Amino acid sequence: MDKQDRQQRIALVPTMGNLHQGHLELVKIAKQHADIVVVSIFVNPTQFGVGEDFDSYPRTLDEDVAKLATVGADYVFAPSVDAMYPVLPPPTTVLAGAISSQLCGQSRPGHFDGVGIVVSKLFNIVQPDVAIFGQKDYQQLAIIKQLVRDLSYSIEIIGAPIIRADDGLALSSRNQYLTESERQVAPILHRELQDLAKQLKGGGISQQAFESLLKDKRTRISDAGFTIDYLEVKTEALGSVVSDSTTFNIENKNIVILVAAWLGRARLLDNQLVVVG
Amino acid sequence: MDKQDRQQRIALVPTMGNLHQGHLELVKIAKQHADIVVVSIFVNPTQFGVGEDFDSYPRTLDEDVAKLATVGADYVFAPSVDAMYPVLPPPTTVLAGAISSQLCGQSRPGHFDGVGIVVSKLFNIVQPDVAIFGQKDYQQLAIIKQLVRDLSYSIEIIGAPIIRADDGLALSSRNQYLTESERQVAPILHRELQDLAKQLKGGGISQQAFESLLKDKRTRISDAGFTIDYLEVKTEALGSVVSDSTTFNIENKNIVILVAAWLGRARLLDNQLVVVG
Repeated sequence: MDKQDRQQRIALVPTMGNLHQGHLELVKIAKQHADIVVVSIFVNPTQFGVGEDFDSYPRTLDEDVAKLATVGADYVFAPSVDAMYPVLPPPTTVLAGAISSQLCGQSRPGHFDGVGIVVSKLFNIVQPDVAIFGQKDYQQLAIIKQLVRDLSYSIEIIGAPIIRADDGLALSSRNQYLTESERQVAPILHRELQDLAKQLKGGGISQQAFESLLKDKRTRISDAGFTIDYLEVKTEALGSVVSDSTTFNIENKNIVILVAAWLGRARLLDNQLVVVG
Repeated sequence: MDKQDRQQRIALVPTMGNLHQGHLELVKIAKQHADIVVVSIFVNPTQFGVGEDFDSYPRTLDEDVAKLATVGADYVFAPSVDAMYPVLPPPTTVLAGAISSQLCGQSRPGHFDGVGIVVSKLFNIVQPDVAIFGQKDYQQLAIIKQLVRDLSYSIEIIGAPIIRADDGLALSSRNQYLTESERQVAPILHRELQDLAKQLKGGGISQQAFESLLKDKRTRISDAGFTIDYLEVKTEALGSVVSDSTTFNIENKNIVILVAAWLGRARLLDNQLVVVG
């Protein structure tokens, strides 16, 4: 009746191109889960806000294709904007609801609406059995898992570990917006998240101490030269860690620390999962 | 890469069950376009508003299955509400935009949001090559065509002609809400649309005469005992027939007359396509 008829499993790795080692690791994971790996390269206009870096986003298709050949990707799907959006913006929208209004959704209004529609389109065009997304975009991954459940896609969604430079900076195409001196500062973000994770991991912390820790971290990151969009601690499903106004309990929970911060022209994302207690 | 790998073409006929001859004609059309015909039967809660007839909507699965066997449907997909909506309402939404805010969208707020998500789910579960929808739900058909384009589904959408009783009433599961005397009155709706179509068909009509014709029709339908939700004339794509505030031109256009009106407990829909001039 459906994809089971196919002889071969197809994996999709959606990207915006300008590929780095993080993307290539996604392809390697894809190859472990499928016979055919399709990498899409599309700088999606609907997920960029007014004044964001859509026009300047690095486009390096030839280099990307060469890199993909080295890791054995089978197909590159690199459509034009016109092909993807005969009508732009498309009247039909795919919205993620409450999960998308916080964190990056708050600093980038409409961003996840663009993600919702382009991911739906890529799923419908490529019809993969499995799709691989990086955990660096933690909220995006959660939104896509929700979309797959809510729209009944029979696609397995795999979150791939964050790939980091030797000094800990999470790899990102936007890292190239950093000046040389900013690049030296950038790994502080990861180090501060690691330190916060260590302090939360043992559990037994009061809400007051928790708030104070977060405040201290925000100060340290700001003092290092970042402009913070957010630094927050959430449950694994991006719910609040404060269960009601009077209760604070992060014992025996999987939590995630998430940060978005500007350093010069680059908006950097990072996150850290923590199993508490 | 995709559905072309399959040996057989699959058609989907989405229904809410309580099948009448109109539905069976959809199946017959489906069989002309595919090797395998899947009929879904699902009274979709997300497309019913508060106070609407979700609870009382007729559910007749055994009879439906028997009827489908007579026209050669291959599979019936009749999921439970829990299976379709593990979380209800689903946080992810599929919205149709401007086209959905007029006509039925105005009298039934949220209705087409429910249609958008359930149709997306059925497409993703059944993965058809072609899907058949009745033209009686003209606005729904237009919204689904837009959804298929905007979300890049590779599914052919076929609109099937309205099936009518001998006296002209469009077949509908909701016709059974009519009392015997209301049932005698109901065909007036179709007759008045036909009459309006005849008067518009020749063209050469002024906007004033057009408005006056519409007003007269509304009066006649109301006087017959209907409570009108809307009686409107639109372009084929559901745009305005008045191109700007001073111009009225329906010459050489495909237009559609659409009506929704209550008769007793039944909300009746009908429409009539007209090629003008």
